[in-house]
Amino acid sequence: MRRWFAFAAAPLLLAQAPPPASLANTSADQIIASAPAAHWLAIDPDDIMVMDTAAGQMLVQLAPAFAPTHVQAIKRLVREGRFDDGRIVRVQDNYVVQWMARPDPLSKPAPLPAEYERPEAGLSFTPSPYADSYAEAGFIAGWQAARDAKAGTVWLAHCYGTVGVGRENPPDTGDGSELYTVIGHGPRHLDRNIANVGRVLAGIEPHAALPRGTEALGFYKAENQRVKINRVRLASQIPGFPRWQMMDTASASFAAVNKARANRTGFFVRPAGAADLCTLKVPTRPVP
Amino acid sequence: MRRWFAFAAAPLLLAQAPPPASLANTSADQIIASAPAAHWLAIDPDDIMVMDTAAGQMLVQLAPAFAPTHVQAIKRLVREGRFDDGRIVRVQDNYVVQWMARPDPLSKPAPLPAEYERPEAGLSFTPSPYADSYAEAGFIAGWQAARDAKAGTVWLAHCYGTVGVGRENPPDTGDGSELYTVIGHGPRHLDRNIANVGRVLAGIEPHAALPRGTEALGFYKAENQRVKINRVRLASQIPGFPRWQMMDTASASFAAVNKARANRTGFFVRPAGAADLCTLKVPTRPVP
Repeated sequence: MRRWFAFAAAPLLLAQAPPPASLANTSADQIIASAPAAHWLAIDPDDIMVMDTAAGQMLVQLAPAFAPTHVQAIKRLVREGRFDDGRIVRVQDNYVVQWMARPDPLSKPAPLPAEYERPEAGLSFTPSPYADSYAEAGFIAGWQAARDAKAGTVWLAHCYGTVGVGRENPPDTGDGSELYTVIGHGPRHLDRNIANVGRVLAGIEPHAALPRGTEALGFYKAENQRVKINRVRLASQIPGFPRWQMMDTASASFAAVNKARANRTGFFVRPAGAADLCTLKVPTRPVP
Repeated sequence: MRRWFAFAAAPLLLAQAPPPASLANTSADQIIASAPAAHWLAIDPDDIMVMDTAAGQMLVQLAPAFAPTHVQAIKRLVREGRFDDGRIVRVQDNYVVQWMARPDPLSKPAPLPAEYERPEAGLSFTPSPYADSYAEAGFIAGWQAARDAKAGTVWLAHCYGTVGVGRENPPDTGDGSELYTVIGHGPRHLDRNIANVGRVLAGIEPHAALPRGTEALGFYKAENQRVKINRVRLASQIPGFPRWQMMDTASASFAAVNKARANRTGFFVRPAGAADLCTLKVPTRPVP
């Protein structure tokens, strides 16, 4: 019986396979690997949350340009150690993994402004060449974003791995002590309804694979189902922590990556000729 | 310490919460619950694969109108018991769970036609009112689909829970013995590159939560990491198996559901006014 599965050791593939050598120079991976240093932006170590949970280590890059007050509140909670001994309390299939800081019965969190969008002024928006169902899709300084040109506003888009601030019904805006990351199809209807504060840089896999909660909205029923967060620090607090970088979304390399993603070869018999915003993930990596 | 988490027993919510009672009559769930029987289509029990795996039971609805030859081949494999003692061999984060029938060293599978799209003729396409990044988005007889009006072709869209046929590089088209379902952001670039054969009706959750494979493309490295498929039957082979139905995507109820999804209230301070194709999942349920 087992021999049948030895036979299966060369299984059928499905997409995302490396393209044939003859096409390798056009692939997104190759473009990323050969992009010049000038096409990469440094990520501030003070903007990286290093989360050590019972499921593994997850790195979250914060986006102070988009939600400055929420990001400041989150960093304060991290520095106070409030996420240490926190818990992952909710895993909803095709939606989110959500976690919370250790509640502090002595401090009542201050209300924060609704940083759900911001003025475009002062930022440089690079439009995506492809249509979007929700708004004008594009990129700002290394982030997947969208724009309302008439209103003059921009915001971070909700895609796989986006990190946002949990909140209750309006007028609540969340206080940064409860965060979530998207583990399903990009819920873009949350755009401009939530303070988006960042994205997962690494380590989402074991968290996206956590058991789904059985209560409404995927909350875990019993306290012992909750996943422990051992410790959260900023990368700036950890001596020798690796530096990270993100591709400059205004660079020619990023435009070429997106063109390659929209026109895949090798496995593909019919390139799409387009790609939606959430598919156009911004390359990030430890500084090589 | 534990008391802090008792405090947290009423956690912050995040979207998808039931809307306030005053708005309940406009919510998608309410529209679905009150849709007249005439707005539902029966699902043929011969089109439902009942998969019992080590992770749980998963129901897959097959779509013979879109990939008749592949679906026929899959049903034959099911009737021959070839998926019994099969294996889930691949789990790639934000992409797919893939499984395979027990290989049969005595039978060489016949090549199948590339059923990646089909003529629109004979089908009724209901356009989505919202823009799409890839093509013209819409619905056909209970399925999320897309259209190229100029070419006169239609196809099933790749969304969370879509089931397709694994294949090797072209000209291979797959033989139906290796299938996958999407567990991440809808990879619409696979549209028209794969024989899409159906969607998961129920039970995707424990499968989407399986550990990610550590080999290239998320394949499991060791044979003992593979997840056993105990038995696969068609619902038509199981006496008394519950009947299922899907909402008629040409019905007024489905149009109302989509409008409600595009204009969410309650938790939302700013309805999107739009929704992408993969967000407009077709309601399915056991016949009440």
